[in-house]
Amino acid sequence: MKVENISIVLVEPQGPMNIGSVCRAMMNLGFSELCLVNPCRKYKSGEARRMALKADTYLYNARVVETLAEALADCHYSFGTTRRFGKYRDDFLLPDAAAGKVLSLPDDARVALVFGREDRGLHTDELNLCQHFITIPTVEEYPSMNLAQAASLCMYEIRKLISKGDVPGVEPTLPAEGGEIEQMFRHMRQTLLDIDYLDPFNPDHILRAFRRIFGRAVLSDRDVRILHGLWSRIDWIESERKKNLPE
Amino acid sequence: MKVENISIVLVEPQGPMNIGSVCRAMMNLGFSELCLVNPCRKYKSGEARRMALKADTYLYNARVVETLAEALADCHYSFGTTRRFGKYRDDFLLPDAAAGKVLSLPDDARVALVFGREDRGLHTDELNLCQHFITIPTVEEYPSMNLAQAASLCMYEIRKLISKGDVPGVEPTLPAEGGEIEQMFRHMRQTLLDIDYLDPFNPDHILRAFRRIFGRAVLSDRDVRILHGLWSRIDWIESERKKNLPE
Repeated sequence: MKVENISIVLVEPQGPMNIGSVCRAMMNLGFSELCLVNPCRKYKSGEARRMALKADTYLYNARVVETLAEALADCHYSFGTTRRFGKYRDDFLLPDAAAGKVLSLPDDARVALVFGREDRGLHTDELNLCQHFITIPTVEEYPSMNLAQAASLCMYEIRKLISKGDVPGVEPTLPAEGGEIEQMFRHMRQTLLDIDYLDPFNPDHILRAFRRIFGRAVLSDRDVRILHGLWSRIDWIESERKKNLPE
Repeated sequence: MKVENISIVLVEPQGPMNIGSVCRAMMNLGFSELCLVNPCRKYKSGEARRMALKADTYLYNARVVETLAEALADCHYSFGTTRRFGKYRDDFLLPDAAAGKVLSLPDDARVALVFGREDRGLHTDELNLCQHFITIPTVEEYPSMNLAQAASLCMYEIRKLISKGDVPGVEPTLPAEGGEIEQMFRHMRQTLLDIDYLDPFNPDHILRAFRRIFGRAVLSDRDVRILHGLWSRIDWIESERKKNLPE
């Protein structure tokens, strides 16, 4: 499935700012096809553009149609968002499962993600045009979510799946090797014994606390070098101090 | 980890509508603690309330403070959002991984999710106060996301895990509070400047590496006491050394 083949369909959106916000989120998350079904007249107004920022081109290029049926006419798959469960709970997908489903579709499939009106969502006859339903796990007491936020959550789940694996932070770099870490601990132990910070009869009591701290931290090569640098500096000031002690 | 113990911290938010939108998303997703660091004056204005809808009570009840340090003083864990990667790529969590991490924290932990300014995000000195970093997988060409959408994505991932019931195993003990950790870092900074271990023109370069190490390690109260003890010992040997220096 190619993300260029996914269109974001807003049905009768009433707030220009919401439409603009959807455009910005689309650009953030790598979507570009916007289709508006009978939108409010001001959908290209200054308010909409102020929220769209650089994505204002999406407002100008939006495909505008009269009915959802028209919007979906050339789509192979449509996913309607709703918080009404009705009889068919089993058909409801959370946004992450929906993203998996969307991305598992054939490469040249055309897919619509359909979002309803700010106040009333999608009508039953519109939901009937969709094959799959997405519902967002809000709390029961206050399930009504802002249109642009609902749309961005659904797009985010798709983007996340696409980018998994090549987003910085996912692939950890190698930490320092055990031998280097032990060498650092030996240096640390000697230094901290020299300055009488460690109890000479039980130095490992406090050292164990540091082993746990650094163990949890998982030190890199650079971290190890920095720590050696600290112990060396302490070695130097201690040796200077001792030089000047009265015999 | 209880969701009531998670606070949403907005640093210098400029747009009342953004703040209101964050409130609505908080209510949708089951969050209730809002902390505003030096917000725009109009954060309770009609614009903010129009976006907050029923969640306007969150605007009135928001805790308002002057600095991020103040906001984090009684927090055990802080997660800062940023799209700057810099040197420390390994520490970045995607929102789903961050949600897993948050929910695995001890039951009575107090956690902050920290979001920066609309235009510039969090400053480096603010990121330094956070132990973990969250980054949202936007596209490279247009990574700047709307504040309320970024916040709602992070909250959504937490809500999703809660509603799926697959919360990861819980860590047993509480770490030290942010205020104690910062006090330890101030002591450390002064000590390491005194012994010329830190470059006086750029002490924070190396200190940041230590912030990352101790941030990953998650220091306990005892760890903090042990570190204070080490710095105090170094203070003493350095002062002894200086006493004996030739004039």
